[in-house]
Amino acid sequence: MATADVPELVAAARQGRPRAVARLISLVEGASPQLREVMAALAPHTGNAHVIGLTGSPGVGKSTSTSALVTAYRRAGKRVGVLAVDPSSPFSGGALLGDRVRMGEHASDPGVYIRSMATRGHLGGLSWAAPQAVRVLDAAGCDVVLVETVGVGQSEVEIASQADTSVVLLAPGMGDGIQAAKAGILEIGDVFVVNKADRDGADATVRELNHMLGLGEARAPGDWRPPVVRSVAARGEGVEDVVEALEKHLAWMEERGVLAERRRKRAGHEVETIAVTALRERIGDLRGDRRLGALAGRVAAGELDPYAAADELVAGVTDAPP
Amino acid sequence: MATADVPELVAAARQGRPRAVARLISLVEGASPQLREVMAALAPHTGNAHVIGLTGSPGVGKSTSTSALVTAYRRAGKRVGVLAVDPSSPFSGGALLGDRVRMGEHASDPGVYIRSMATRGHLGGLSWAAPQAVRVLDAAGCDVVLVETVGVGQSEVEIASQADTSVVLLAPGMGDGIQAAKAGILEIGDVFVVNKADRDGADATVRELNHMLGLGEARAPGDWRPPVVRSVAARGEGVEDVVEALEKHLAWMEERGVLAERRRKRAGHEVETIAVTALRERIGDLRGDRRLGALAGRVAAGELDPYAAADELVAGVTDAPP
Repeated sequence: MATADVPELVAAARQGRPRAVARLISLVEGASPQLREVMAALAPHTGNAHVIGLTGSPGVGKSTSTSALVTAYRRAGKRVGVLAVDPSSPFSGGALLGDRVRMGEHASDPGVYIRSMATRGHLGGLSWAAPQAVRVLDAAGCDVVLVETVGVGQSEVEIASQADTSVVLLAPGMGDGIQAAKAGILEIGDVFVVNKADRDGADATVRELNHMLGLGEARAPGDWRPPVVRSVAARGEGVEDVVEALEKHLAWMEERGVLAERRRKRAGHEVETIAVTALRERIGDLRGDRRLGALAGRVAAGELDPYAAADELVAGVTDAPP
Repeated sequence: MATADVPELVAAARQGRPRAVARLISLVEGASPQLREVMAALAPHTGNAHVIGLTGSPGVGKSTSTSALVTAYRRAGKRVGVLAVDPSSPFSGGALLGDRVRMGEHASDPGVYIRSMATRGHLGGLSWAAPQAVRVLDAAGCDVVLVETVGVGQSEVEIASQADTSVVLLAPGMGDGIQAAKAGILEIGDVFVVNKADRDGADATVRELNHMLGLGEARAPGDWRPPVVRSVAARGEGVEDVVEALEKHLAWMEERGVLAERRRKRAGHEVETIAVTALRERIGDLRGDRRLGALAGRVAAGELDPYAAADELVAGVTDAPP
């Protein structure tokens, strides 16, 4: 890829030009040599978007719900970015097809930017590049960024660490939905949506969820009590209620200083991840090196224990110029 | 836990005293302050055991096969260690119950050492402490160490990197078994076992496996061609054939210098993992520190991009005394 004029790209992206946004995400996603330049140029323009994570098991209607939310937010005049980090999502197929996925009704809407990302490095979880792509969409002027990810344990926790508001989607009659809930999503969901609420068992699912949410530790007055909202996303039913719950959560976070705190935490997590990756790469650089090979040989021969070897390796890495 | 007399413990473990072995593994598993002392004391005594990894989906009869292999190896007069790193294994339940799991017929056999480990840090995969526990069993004089792990993608790859010989277990009629095979186990299996071979579909499974193994790149003469062995572990049938295949693989590795190479690689991987963990801990130490908090705040405010912040953090970490 030719060297990009980053300031020009950022300016174009901020004017809402989809090609510029796509190019910036590609630079970020491909870990281009210009990645740092891009990130530095974006930084002053970030922090405006409401980043909403959507997670849930396959079959709960995640993509349909995402699409319905896009419609609802567009109706309210908001610019919307969608980041689909889900190998099972129909959007994600688009990662193979090109930059901008033609997502039915939203394809020709200039106020919607849809991007799918292949997961890399994480099994089913968020791509390492996802937070950087969120930054691009945020800087490009999206008021809302929806991050859709597949609902497996690890990614649910990850999404909570990367979103302002985490939405957990469930469907009636999916025993595993509630099972998953028990496994930890109760702690991470800010808003719970029981989709396909016209199906048998919806009442039971809502009841069970409310019950489990009530079992948690007592909340102080003013604490957030995650609402359980019903929807039939395929028909657009209840989607305004979901948006209302999301807006309420945003307002609550702003009021209580929680938003700033979450974003600081998220930034901390992001910085830490990049730092660990950088350190790991330094070790990786030594892999082809005589040093690790020699140490490994001595460990295999029983001459050295692995911890002593690791000490030598770490010393070698940290002595290297930054 | 009181400070242990490590040289005494190692001497006792080498004499086959199960309590000493248990104590050493506990020291290793609990990341005790004496961990390094233990590892250093063990190092000279390692490298004798044939480390065999067993993996496979739930339901293929992994634990039954492990038990049958123990019986077979004991019959051949070998000392056997079993490390069960599998949350779904009946052995692993023992991790909660105590150090030494009473594994039916082997419980009272002083030539068998069985240890279950809870997985930590890895979802369903090998515990970080597993390689260290293998070292304990190896140093304690086990001729064979069987490492049983649950068959999910990641752990299958991990087991291959930690074992001398990787056994992949399948059962007839489990479509997902072969699916899993397609997903990558073909590359990692040194020996394939179709267990429950008295069931319908065993021939088809063996045939399909052999077919897929044949599809790989052409092997040079003298290369290892993973055999597909049938067994009915619950009745002990075919288990001697499995042992024969394992012994053949060991002999082949020794002949071709592959064993030394694999162990060097494994040691390299181990050293690298410890080094990365150590570096990560240094970053973790900064978490409570003003430094990461301040950097995160500046990133959240858009004053700094996360890469520049990570640079500062890495500089802070690598400047710290080793």
